[in-house]
Amino acid sequence: MKKTQIVIIGSADDTEHYDTAYAIGSFVAKNGWVLITGGRTGVMEAASKGAHDHGGIVVGILPFDRFDGANQYCDIVIPTGIGFARNSMNVLSADVVISIGGKAGTLTELAYAWHYGKPIISCVFTGGWSKRIIDQPIDDRNNGSVIYPAYSLDDVFKILVTIVNTSRE
Amino acid sequence: MKKTQIVIIGSADDTEHYDTAYAIGSFVAKNGWVLITGGRTGVMEAASKGAHDHGGIVVGILPFDRFDGANQYCDIVIPTGIGFARNSMNVLSADVVISIGGKAGTLTELAYAWHYGKPIISCVFTGGWSKRIIDQPIDDRNNGSVIYPAYSLDDVFKILVTIVNTSRE
Amino acid sequence: MKKTQIVIIGSADDTEHYDTAYAIGSFVAKNGWVLITGGRTGVMEAASKGAHDHGGIVVGILPFDRFDGANQYCDIVIPTGIGFARNSMNVLSADVVISIGGKAGTLTELAYAWHYGKPIISCVFTGGWSKRIIDQPIDDRNNGSVIYPAYSLDDVFKILVTIVNTSRE
Amino acid sequence: MKKTQIVIIGSADDTEHYDTAYAIGSFVAKNGWVLITGGRTGVMEAASKGAHDHGGIVVGILPFDRFDGANQYCDIVIPTGIGFARNSMNVLSADVVISIGGKAGTLTELAYAWHYGKPIISCVFTGGWSKRIIDQPIDDRNNGSVIYPAYSLDDVFKILVTIVNTSRE
Repeated sequence: MKKTQIVIIGSADDTEHYDTAYAIGSFVAKNGWVLITGGRTGVMEAASKGAHDHGGIVVGILPFDRFDGANQYCDIVIPTGIGFARNSMNVLSADVVISIGGKAGTLTELAYAWHYGKPIISCVFTGGWSKRIIDQPIDDRNNGSVIYPAYSLDDVFKILVTIVNTSRE
Repeated sequence: MKKTQIVIIGSADDTEHYDTAYAIGSFVAKNGWVLITGGRTGVMEAASKGAHDHGGIVVGILPFDRFDGANQYCDIVIPTGIGFARNSMNVLSADVVISIGGKAGTLTELAYAWHYGKPIISCVFTGGWSKRIIDQPIDDRNNGSVIYPAYSLDDVFKILVTIVNTSRE
Repeated sequence: MKKTQIVIIGSADDTEHYDTAYAIGSFVAKNGWVLITGGRTGVMEAASKGAHDHGGIVVGILPFDRFDGANQYCDIVIPTGIGFARNSMNVLSADVVISIGGKAGTLTELAYAWHYGKPIISCVFTGGWSKRIIDQPIDDRNNGSVIYPAYSLDDVFKILVTIVNTSRE
Repeated sequence: MKKTQIVIIGSADDTEHYDTAYAIGSFVAKNGWVLITGGRTGVMEAASKGAHDHGGIVVGILPFDRFDGANQYCDIVIPTGIGFARNSMNVLSADVVISIGGKAGTLTELAYAWHYGKPIISCVFTGGWSKRIIDQPIDDRNNGSVIYPAYSLDDVFKILVTIVNTSRE
């Protein structure tokens, strides 16, 4: 049976939020959930290391067509070979999306996640698109997506547990 | 030799900006450029009709795997079969991207266009993400993309001609 | 209204069948149909040149994320950025698929075309997978695809006209 | 660090080779390797059940944009949302591809695997494209792919162990 899949999104060149990403990755693993990221450096690597160090299963969904570009903490690597069109499937793979900081690539994933009706936890305290996106709804459609603003790591953990528990009922 | 390809992005359920999209599509055709859209209804259909009515070539790049979902003004239909991951290739196909209004799907295209370094003309006067996106740069990377705010149809035409002429030099 | 779209498939490193591909591309253009190929060298370039030289519209659907890799006879270039996953959409774009020679990439397109129920004209006289594929049905499913073996250029033209005329009725 | 990833390909409507697929999936799990399939019914489900019953990690890479279509033995589900274009990434995810029976979809995967230079174990004794493909090389390119014909389950196991051990050296 499918495990709970948590997708963490954020920039490949963002090392500023390494601790945050590591902490959330760790939390995902400690709860027995699968961590999925885009498999690269920066936020993705930090989250992957956190999950890896705590015994979790880590999946990296790469834009590239080779295993090489994956960070070393991925247990399973999917080299999609479809470039950044893979951002769509990153969030399709999510029971919950967690956004940290974020540049253009993360923005595509936030917009896709909204479009696909996914619950999103947006780490407002990390800035970037995680902060900018919460000003107003992404659009006036209602596909079922909710963006939960998180103002601290503790917020992230509480909201995440609530969403996962609710979806199981 | 490749013709100049202008990609118009906007929502499938936006009929409010039909006249704007129609006028821009018409302008594209009258200049002998190819119009490319996502091939569907709303802004995409209006732009396609404008280009069609003025003798232009109209291409629709559909998310679906059949010709059926295309609006009737497309001369050429590419049913990608890859869902909304096709948004990435919509803007990859652009010499210039023109954004009208815009919901979540359009936002993915704006973010991709920025990431891919494409010139973007954003119709601020049509609201939606075309207005929201110009507040500040999408991120701090410099892939060469410039977002040109257009405050009127006339702005759109002038900026478009300038970009196309410059890229030819 | 969508024009009739003919997709020619064949290898990027096959120059042996340049004349055949050129002749079929020419025939497509002379009939007012749109030619679509994978946009690259070899069979794709030869077909594109044929259509181009006879006033046709030529579309190239590239695996790459830039216009650069397209042959010079493409009027419209779609740089999909999704690598060889784009083979699926090449044949989805077809009213009729015509296969010339063919290596592994062409084989994926033949198999996709069969799966998607497309009519396929297979140039048996050009060898490669166009010859090997006709030995027996690709599988026992019936999605509506028919593979028409063509033993000469003249066969190709006759079968093509018949299919296009029939589908219009 | 990435685990060894074995991709089993075969038809969604093939239940004839359930035992074979189950046995190979079991073997993959017993060796501590990750099993990846297209996540659906038939051969994919049988292999997934085999791996699942023996404590393995099972990944399903779906063509659909929802978790729903996955067989119940998948631990991790990637709903790519890109239809059968996902066949390309199925084999890109492989350290070794194992082919059982096979219709048109499997044929695309065999051709992609060859194109991408992957080692392929083809279960000749299961018929379908696993049998037809071994008659002669897929083409005259040399991307490094080798197709190993297996005439029994025992062959599969021996060849698989050899390939995995060799690639580790």
